[in-house]
Amino acid sequence: MVTMSDVARAAGVSPMTVSNVVNGRSGVSEATRARVAEAVSALGYRANASARRLRTGRTGAVGLLVPEVAASYYTHLAGRLSRGLEPHGYRVVLERTGATRAGEERALSPERLGAYDAVAVSPVVLDGEEVRRAVGERPCVLLGERPLRGAHPQVAMDDVGGSVLAVRHLLEHGARRVAVVGGRPARAGADMPSLRTEGYRWALLDAGAVVDERLVVPVSAFDARGGFEATRRLLEGAPDADALFVLTDAAATGALRALADLGRDVPGDVQVVGFDNDEGSAYTVPRLTTVDPGNAAMAEAVVDLLLAQLRSGPVPARLLRPSGAHLVVRESTRAVGPRT
Amino acid sequence: MVTMSDVARAAGVSPMTVSNVVNGRSGVSEATRARVAEAVSALGYRANASARRLRTGRTGAVGLLVPEVAASYYTHLAGRLSRGLEPHGYRVVLERTGATRAGEERALSPERLGAYDAVAVSPVVLDGEEVRRAVGERPCVLLGERPLRGAHPQVAMDDVGGSVLAVRHLLEHGARRVAVVGGRPARAGADMPSLRTEGYRWALLDAGAVVDERLVVPVSAFDARGGFEATRRLLEGAPDADALFVLTDAAATGALRALADLGRDVPGDVQVVGFDNDEGSAYTVPRLTTVDPGNAAMAEAVVDLLLAQLRSGPVPARLLRPSGAHLVVRESTRAVGPRT
Repeated sequence: MVTMSDVARAAGVSPMTVSNVVNGRSGVSEATRARVAEAVSALGYRANASARRLRTGRTGAVGLLVPEVAASYYTHLAGRLSRGLEPHGYRVVLERTGATRAGEERALSPERLGAYDAVAVSPVVLDGEEVRRAVGERPCVLLGERPLRGAHPQVAMDDVGGSVLAVRHLLEHGARRVAVVGGRPARAGADMPSLRTEGYRWALLDAGAVVDERLVVPVSAFDARGGFEATRRLLEGAPDADALFVLTDAAATGALRALADLGRDVPGDVQVVGFDNDEGSAYTVPRLTTVDPGNAAMAEAVVDLLLAQLRSGPVPARLLRPSGAHLVVRESTRAVGPRT
Repeated sequence: MVTMSDVARAAGVSPMTVSNVVNGRSGVSEATRARVAEAVSALGYRANASARRLRTGRTGAVGLLVPEVAASYYTHLAGRLSRGLEPHGYRVVLERTGATRAGEERALSPERLGAYDAVAVSPVVLDGEEVRRAVGERPCVLLGERPLRGAHPQVAMDDVGGSVLAVRHLLEHGARRVAVVGGRPARAGADMPSLRTEGYRWALLDAGAVVDERLVVPVSAFDARGGFEATRRLLEGAPDADALFVLTDAAATGALRALADLGRDVPGDVQVVGFDNDEGSAYTVPRLTTVDPGNAAMAEAVVDLLLAQLRSGPVPARLLRPSGAHLVVRESTRAVGPRT
């Protein structure tokens, strides 16, 4: 096997200089750095990166393992985690599990986990105990809606509470037939759409209204196309719907588009509330009223829990909801309720 | 060091069974799998994942190293690469370089590269030769606008050609004062905005028009907020602009919002063309006319070039533009030009 000394000899520098270059330390001239890099490449020293990782156990990377990387919610989370972890010398790497058991097991396999000093995992299929067995002693934070009951701390979003806020806001501003786009049957599970739909049902019942299942429409995906198609389908079956609670902002942009196509004024004819407070939702036409689930506070909690484990080992396994959700009122709901 | 035999003994199974579990092979019962995972965790066998990687040199992961993970363009690319590579047993991992020299060097350090069997890199600061020295013999595809002149194949976008299409379309539909939002000074460089601005300048000159530098406005970022703020600034200085070429769809959503605020009808008063054909741009109000740079063909080329190298070693270093850009005409430009 090629050693650091071999590289040093080939580059005409000391092994310490090679170590400095390989470990990205400063105080090495550009020319020397280039010569060492050349020798590393020529001798195929790359295998030693794994050897070094074996020895030091450090990769400098934190894995964010999520169902889907093309979902704006997770990419924004990755950005927030990066800003929190990079000052401490950790880079955030985003990995897609595909929301299947096979995908989650593969992402949590020893070969893949070896790439990370710590992981933040949003499991869809695996439970907290399965995650614990997979990650072993590696620092880990669980993300997600359903209580995962593992050995690691979990940071959860206030899905039910945020949804209650959204639906109450619609009812207080004159809505009488509130639909939920992306909704799920009652007691369907503890995934994100089920919990948000639960908040919808709870707010209606709490206001003395009944839940009309014709106003609960699923989406094919929580993106613009999914929201667009579901809204068209909804309004064919229930043309008297006067408000939409759309379970993600991404889907809500599609709902706004469908309403524009149908000539329904927003918020005059139909009010719309989203969920997530994506960066783009302040720039839709009309601007989207939405639920901010406390993204900044959640990201801070994840960063703190990862750093605590990286520094001093395990922390207690508990479920955190770092901040209550709050409503961001913009143009897609009525500023003042009608006199009734 | 803990060996596979130690794990086998602790779990009461054969070393072959441990190997099957660790390597994710099928044909092992859930109960056995759980027992092995438990022993792996209890004995701290994780270090052996690196040992195994040393031995086999395979991680099953392809790294997509890009300036920014929160940019929809790259997350959609990641999705396309995943769909192309997963059937061949490779998962795509998205890693942010931050578009700085330090960030790119860190992402390309031996410790980090050890996590990947192959990489697709979109360098902003490093040149192709620096990437070559860093990645050594590892399969690699370069992504990007400027010719990187390294040892690896590069897949590039037709930025100039696509921009010419966009501006010609505006001119053919009656625009007389075409602004470029996100534009750069002439000959500023070979980055994405500079190349797209070059196409803008070229199309205007080719049509016998002059370039008015007051109509070339930069953005703080290529997102909705950046496009929104730049469009407001533009129309304060040049209220007679009657068409906007916005260099990304993400920024164009902000431009549409700014025009709505100013009471300018799109496309009646001001026509708008974006660039990228993001999935969301079919659902804006109004729907965005945009340039599709051939995203699908580019992703296919990257997948083919990675698989070719993974299977049979180096491929020639050449610059590929897999497909010409084409225009997707929607509602933000005039369907029929005015009679002049």
